Amino acid sequence: MNSAVTIYGVGLGPGDPDLMSVKAARLIGNARVIAHFRKPGRAGNARTLVEGLLAPGVIEVAMEYPVTTEIALDDPAYNDSLREFYDDCVQRLLVHAAQGRDVAVLCEGDPFLYGSFMHLHSRLAGKANVVVVPGISGMSGCWTASDRPITFGDDVLSVVPATLDEPSLRERFRDIDALVVMKLGRNLPKVRRALKAAGLIERAVYVERGTMAAQKVMRLADKTDDEAPYFSVILVHGQGRRP
Amino acid sequence: MNSAVTIYGVGLGPGDPDLMSVKAARLIGNARVIAHFRKPGRAGNARTLVEGLLAPGVIEVAMEYPVTTEIALDDPAYNDSLREFYDDCVQRLLVHAAQGRDVAVLCEGDPFLYGSFMHLHSRLAGKANVVVVPGISGMSGCWTASDRPITFGDDVLSVVPATLDEPSLRERFRDIDALVVMKLGRNLPKVRRALKAAGLIERAVYVERGTMAAQKVMRLADKTDDEAPYFSVILVHGQGRRP
Repeated sequence: MNSAVTIYGVGLGPGDPDLMSVKAARLIGNARVIAHFRKPGRAGNARTLVEGLLAPGVIEVAMEYPVTTEIALDDPAYNDSLREFYDDCVQRLLVHAAQGRDVAVLCEGDPFLYGSFMHLHSRLAGKANVVVVPGISGMSGCWTASDRPITFGDDVLSVVPATLDEPSLRERFRDIDALVVMKLGRNLPKVRRALKAAGLIERAVYVERGTMAAQKVMRLADKTDDEAPYFSVILVHGQGRRP
Repeated sequence: MNSAVTIYGVGLGPGDPDLMSVKAARLIGNARVIAHFRKPGRAGNARTLVEGLLAPGVIEVAMEYPVTTEIALDDPAYNDSLREFYDDCVQRLLVHAAQGRDVAVLCEGDPFLYGSFMHLHSRLAGKANVVVVPGISGMSGCWTASDRPITFGDDVLSVVPATLDEPSLRERFRDIDALVVMKLGRNLPKVRRALKAAGLIERAVYVERGTMAAQKVMRLADKTDDEAPYFSVILVHGQGRRP
């Protein structure tokens, strides 16, 4: 382990490059090696976001997910495939560290909030210095786009992944003050039914690509289709104490 | 309403000035008027954070809270006093807007997540253009400081203000995956008892001033006193699915 070398997990924020932190922008601009996740054959959101910031001659490590939606989440093959993938990513990053080069791993949103980087972080422990730079979360970009506070006063905020099964969603939506439902994608019909069961459908706001040029904000009740990118969210704003 | 003028609510992030967004740093550096909340007689965390960034000749509007801990939260006088205070703040900001000057209101953390700015935001509706710039939340600064992801896979994240009464805290701590307890301050003994009742005390991590020079991170079980600043948090990290 070369103690002079650091692998950074750099939070890029919710999508507007201007919402990257000063520290993230500086680290990315100075990096000799950047690494980023993407789907096979795609440019990748994270990489697109730093276009124009990179130093000349930067080395790029594209880490391509082996599976995303082709295998069911509860199929053991899904986990095996991802495990190998993350192990392999770590080896690729460590090659650069061994040669004395810092690496900046680009992370959409905030690395420690539902981010892929955490799977590298745990594997790098004891093998490299790792520093995480937090970012503005995607959900914050979305509630900012909605132009309303997500929580007031004593409101409890519940952040619920839409990947839960429907009975669990119904259970988690009970007695909420303020709610963010993450990872919508093809889970939208299920989430819609659970919100209806919880009496929340009229308060629900759908936000897609918050803070980005293609941002969409609408009442969920007004959304007539079930198309939702994975990085869209549903918000139920808190109604708590306010003087 | 002068449509060429904007009042910005600018998220400053969790405490390290380097974690301000590029946009926030630029807005603050160019601002002709900045406004910030503080306790009477204090410099104010928000103002301290932007030291060295301000333009020469900037006009500063210090908004001093009339009450913080002197009156109980459930005393109607508390709400009355705050209502007058926020009304007055808005008038002071609108004077600048009427004279054609943009105003940047400094907001610690993320303005729309338990921030004081939201009380100005609602009062400014229809009276001025208001733009909110999100920031890295204080809680993200704290889980980054803890050097562990707060959520994995399908974990639900619950964000609970310590200002709730003890039975409500016990209720909210049941069946959690990942937990952030905000606004600790003098509520720490109550939170500690509720965490114990929920069987969470061994998993709880106390973080004070995450990302700042005076940052402290420790297991709650190892914290022998009940001293906690208002901007400290308790984390219970998720243990969900990870390949």
